[in-house]
Amino acid sequence: MAAKLKTAVLGATGYSGLELARLLSRHARVAAPLLLRRNTETHAAESPAEMFPHIAGNGHAPVEPFSWTRLQQDGVELLFLATPHAVSRGLVPEAISRGLRVVDLSGAWRLKQEQHRAVYGFKDADAPTAAQLTERAVYGLPELHGDRIPAAALVANPGCYATSVILALAPLLSADLVDCDRGIISDSKSGVSGAGKEPTARTHFVSVADNFSAYSVFGHRHTGEILEQLELSAHQLIFTPHLLPIPRGILSTIYVYLKRKMAAAEIESCFRDFYQGKRWVRVFPASSLPQITFSLHTNYCDLGFCLADDGRRLVLVSCLDNLLKGAAGQAVQNMNLMYGWKEEEGLE
Amino acid sequence: MAAKLKTAVLGATGYSGLELARLLSRHARVAAPLLLRRNTETHAAESPAEMFPHIAGNGHAPVEPFSWTRLQQDGVELLFLATPHAVSRGLVPEAISRGLRVVDLSGAWRLKQEQHRAVYGFKDADAPTAAQLTERAVYGLPELHGDRIPAAALVANPGCYATSVILALAPLLSADLVDCDRGIISDSKSGVSGAGKEPTARTHFVSVADNFSAYSVFGHRHTGEILEQLELSAHQLIFTPHLLPIPRGILSTIYVYLKRKMAAAEIESCFRDFYQGKRWVRVFPASSLPQITFSLHTNYCDLGFCLADDGRRLVLVSCLDNLLKGAAGQAVQNMNLMYGWKEEEGLE
Amino acid sequence: MAAKLKTAVLGATGYSGLELARLLSRHARVAAPLLLRRNTETHAAESPAEMFPHIAGNGHAPVEPFSWTRLQQDGVELLFLATPHAVSRGLVPEAISRGLRVVDLSGAWRLKQEQHRAVYGFKDADAPTAAQLTERAVYGLPELHGDRIPAAALVANPGCYATSVILALAPLLSADLVDCDRGIISDSKSGVSGAGKEPTARTHFVSVADNFSAYSVFGHRHTGEILEQLELSAHQLIFTPHLLPIPRGILSTIYVYLKRKMAAAEIESCFRDFYQGKRWVRVFPASSLPQITFSLHTNYCDLGFCLADDGRRLVLVSCLDNLLKGAAGQAVQNMNLMYGWKEEEGLE
Amino acid sequence: MAAKLKTAVLGATGYSGLELARLLSRHARVAAPLLLRRNTETHAAESPAEMFPHIAGNGHAPVEPFSWTRLQQDGVELLFLATPHAVSRGLVPEAISRGLRVVDLSGAWRLKQEQHRAVYGFKDADAPTAAQLTERAVYGLPELHGDRIPAAALVANPGCYATSVILALAPLLSADLVDCDRGIISDSKSGVSGAGKEPTARTHFVSVADNFSAYSVFGHRHTGEILEQLELSAHQLIFTPHLLPIPRGILSTIYVYLKRKMAAAEIESCFRDFYQGKRWVRVFPASSLPQITFSLHTNYCDLGFCLADDGRRLVLVSCLDNLLKGAAGQAVQNMNLMYGWKEEEGLE
Repeated sequence: MAAKLKTAVLGATGYSGLELARLLSRHARVAAPLLLRRNTETHAAESPAEMFPHIAGNGHAPVEPFSWTRLQQDGVELLFLATPHAVSRGLVPEAISRGLRVVDLSGAWRLKQEQHRAVYGFKDADAPTAAQLTERAVYGLPELHGDRIPAAALVANPGCYATSVILALAPLLSADLVDCDRGIISDSKSGVSGAGKEPTARTHFVSVADNFSAYSVFGHRHTGEILEQLELSAHQLIFTPHLLPIPRGILSTIYVYLKRKMAAAEIESCFRDFYQGKRWVRVFPASSLPQITFSLHTNYCDLGFCLADDGRRLVLVSCLDNLLKGAAGQAVQNMNLMYGWKEEEGLE
Repeated sequence: MAAKLKTAVLGATGYSGLELARLLSRHARVAAPLLLRRNTETHAAESPAEMFPHIAGNGHAPVEPFSWTRLQQDGVELLFLATPHAVSRGLVPEAISRGLRVVDLSGAWRLKQEQHRAVYGFKDADAPTAAQLTERAVYGLPELHGDRIPAAALVANPGCYATSVILALAPLLSADLVDCDRGIISDSKSGVSGAGKEPTARTHFVSVADNFSAYSVFGHRHTGEILEQLELSAHQLIFTPHLLPIPRGILSTIYVYLKRKMAAAEIESCFRDFYQGKRWVRVFPASSLPQITFSLHTNYCDLGFCLADDGRRLVLVSCLDNLLKGAAGQAVQNMNLMYGWKEEEGLE
Repeated sequence: MAAKLKTAVLGATGYSGLELARLLSRHARVAAPLLLRRNTETHAAESPAEMFPHIAGNGHAPVEPFSWTRLQQDGVELLFLATPHAVSRGLVPEAISRGLRVVDLSGAWRLKQEQHRAVYGFKDADAPTAAQLTERAVYGLPELHGDRIPAAALVANPGCYATSVILALAPLLSADLVDCDRGIISDSKSGVSGAGKEPTARTHFVSVADNFSAYSVFGHRHTGEILEQLELSAHQLIFTPHLLPIPRGILSTIYVYLKRKMAAAEIESCFRDFYQGKRWVRVFPASSLPQITFSLHTNYCDLGFCLADDGRRLVLVSCLDNLLKGAAGQAVQNMNLMYGWKEEEGLE
Repeated sequence: MAAKLKTAVLGATGYSGLELARLLSRHARVAAPLLLRRNTETHAAESPAEMFPHIAGNGHAPVEPFSWTRLQQDGVELLFLATPHAVSRGLVPEAISRGLRVVDLSGAWRLKQEQHRAVYGFKDADAPTAAQLTERAVYGLPELHGDRIPAAALVANPGCYATSVILALAPLLSADLVDCDRGIISDSKSGVSGAGKEPTARTHFVSVADNFSAYSVFGHRHTGEILEQLELSAHQLIFTPHLLPIPRGILSTIYVYLKRKMAAAEIESCFRDFYQGKRWVRVFPASSLPQITFSLHTNYCDLGFCLADDGRRLVLVSCLDNLLKGAAGQAVQNMNLMYGWKEEEGLE
């Protein structure tokens, strides 16, 4: 067997980072990953073993402070960044210049268009490297860009909401079936791990339990990704995120009007054809809808739909686990493509 | 002080019935309500005191089997029906002929149009009384029909989802601000008590917890109420219910396109003007959205909105407690109007 | 009617403080309470209306910064402290010296014995006032000290866990029925609001949901209260708190060995006699156990028990709402006694 | 590689049966299991694929009606029974006589002593086969009976609560460290899947959410298993189950008094020595306690403890996933031992 790939995870104490560490440590083609934290992290002393004494002694490495030297010592080839976007924006140019390949789980490198990037407030207008890297970065949605990921040096792992919306709409839009100007609506709902590990008034158990709420209406950062990937104009999409009182999982209910009257079987075929051979998308039969629990703890994105009697109004439902297909699982899927392995390795 | 009103609640062991019994027993103008169950109810032996030993000895009457004689003995004037719609459809004609006034919490008498009633499958084509009563029944949404409820013999208490959607849309539609033909979408989410007390695979804790799902897409019974009350055509509305992993509460996220470009302040004024003097609707400031917990255990319907930069795309959020403003609370509000009392009596 | 009592709540933005503000604002004998926050509070700008826009305009006063002058201006007679114990320890001496009566919801004044007080780390050995006040403070458990509360200047409102345990054990201990030296165990479980409003890693939704855990084993602060009130030695009691994935509510399962073989009816009589005429304790019939939801949103402490066939081993179950009978409700109950009103005023 | 083992799961639509089907279908040494249902099952038409459309087409076999012929056709060697105890009691004699080996997940064959078996109400006094099989059945707790399981024809898979309690107490009892006559108390808490898939008033989401309750005090069926396995008398143990508002997971808080004063390090050594080389028990460091989420979706039983200052009073905490180490996972662990494979195969 070939030598195992050397990887590192920076940000290994966050939800996505931990999940990624778990997946990598079980991956047959990957050596035990180097787990790193930023020096500035508030809970600098934390390691998974300190936080979770039960995993101490079960082969989990401690989480060490980040340094380029440490990466070099370990011979790391592939760096996963599970860090805030500003941190990723800062680190990636040097990582690439040092010859590392990078899968970045933040929003730092996902957007090509300045208008969408504005929401992140990057101050790199005068940073030619950043501009060049933005061009070279590949949006890591394997079902759409499976041809470009293998050769990518920098993969921008998609947002969790964006994955659920893009995968639901891509087949119909690519077949030019949707009346986009009439408006597409994605009413999306996410579990709390999507809000990150930082304790805030908003993530306090008492704020979330027995509750449900919309947030960031007309202003969520993932909107730009969806627009760019689906080649939509801003006025054609409303994307509304909501906070569900569950730890993980996303369900997007998406409303589109079709250009012509269609039969349910046609819609189903459109989806099945588009995702033919795609291991991590499950298309449900017409009128049979996925639920969040169906995809929890898996790397699947589940897609279903209901078509109105008029054959024009269509409701799509898209579900995934925000920490797997919406983050760490998709990152591993991208790694598999980058190294020529089967898409499902380490994910089953 | 005037003599207290004599009331009875048939179906006092269901979620809405229990809540109603609780509200009536604290209402200053109402005598202790007669609590009744249908003879055919599965758990015929149950009384609140048997089910909940803690309330025995706290003044709660037992739940007795229903009979017209029993109502007569007690001198009941107002009958609340918290029964399945088929039961209500059967009992109301006789109740009215006996001179009782009725507030029916089921869907039996809410719909005027045959096309919408079809979903309930009533077999009363040859029942002239039923047809006449359907005409005479008043849809018990006090904010819309406060003028007709006082004189009504039969009040059809609105559905919980329908209340949340109608109250959110009525101000804009009545001011003719909405481009209805472009399509109105209500993506609605409800807690589990809305599904009733019957234990089913769907209401099992393990099915609901950590989960979220859409159901009855393009086919929920409340759709007809919304269409009739808002005078919309079927093709103008998509109403999609979802099941939230919480015991109670509804949030509807509603998407409309405005006929002309508007300012947020105009929208807010439209709502404030429409609900001026309405005790049980709270209008939130522009861009400030209600959450489910804000209205739980109250009779409020909370309304908020966000307007897109283009001044045309509008997202409304409507919240209420499905057992109060969505059922028992609204029934008491209707009773208050029927007897000339203040709308808030017994509800604060 | 007599003039309404002037009250203030310091710490009105915490869970107990908010609940207290809500209860006082509905209490017929109390003027709208003055709502205050400490100047040092992190979220100093917050007011209930800012935090919860839905209550703005519904008569809720803003939360103002604390000052003695402000209390004087308002003519406040009774001061509720919903503050950390160190803050209460600091403020009470001056409050008393200014002629105010105080109900303190913290642990600052509950303990008479130095050995139990040690856990709070008070630095007032040289503060004669504090020592005197400690002596004069009345432990505000109305079912035990209803005779001393009316004249008290300083009422130390009991801990939530302590209330659940003490009320369950007092009848049996006072009748000398328990073999204390064999050991009493209270396995207690609380909802998350008991941990306070501060967002921490421990109160993050993702940490609590789907989880359950024990904490502070052999070291919880409420242990001292239980020992003092029940006149037990430390070795006679094990008190183990656990965190439940629910917003509010406490259930204590308590294990005792009886000195002699008893019948269930005797046990039940012991409880019923002890709580005869006590409005806020409900004794369940033998073998019928309370559940947390039975007492939620009420001021009841619910008590039930099961006796083993041998007539010696006894399991007690005690439930209450930690924010009501365990905090704000009990504070109002104490106020009612202090001013000679009925125990249930403002609590039904 | 050797031919794969042929297995069947009867009761493959229940929670444990589904989990078992999932584990077996991923087990490298086991052929795709034959999934069966009893002919009398209420939802006879159900198959996992019908219930969960998302798994259709992912290689899951349909669930077929049970018949001996069907087992024979498939060449089944090992039969898993995830059926009610009365069904298991009826089927096992014939299964054994047909030369099958059996792992039974019900309580049918766990108890040797008539006094404990009484609670199940078996009517087989006159069934010599049943009596003989009861003798031959091996209690399938690998950490205790790992020597006898390899040769067993009939393995009685332990109860979920029993596993959590027995594994926590066995090391101390086997070292004779516990003052049993002073009384051992296990205050145990389980998620709702432990109550089975049948929808009942008790498992309705609205009954469980925001709630917590004790049940079957002094009368739970698992008590007998614990007593037999630990060789305790009935008066030495109180076992109190509680229902947690979570889908899965068990935590038992266990109270024991030690015969002599001990140091925490001694206790920890006692546990570590006892479980030396046992793959599926994790011993936590002194005063570091497991939580339910730590063992969810794993086959681990996690054990921790806190010792009082007096060195005599000991609190043990034991956690496991009731569907894995408490049911299906342990069944696979038993199968591994029965066929001479490593204990962890198919469970990592």
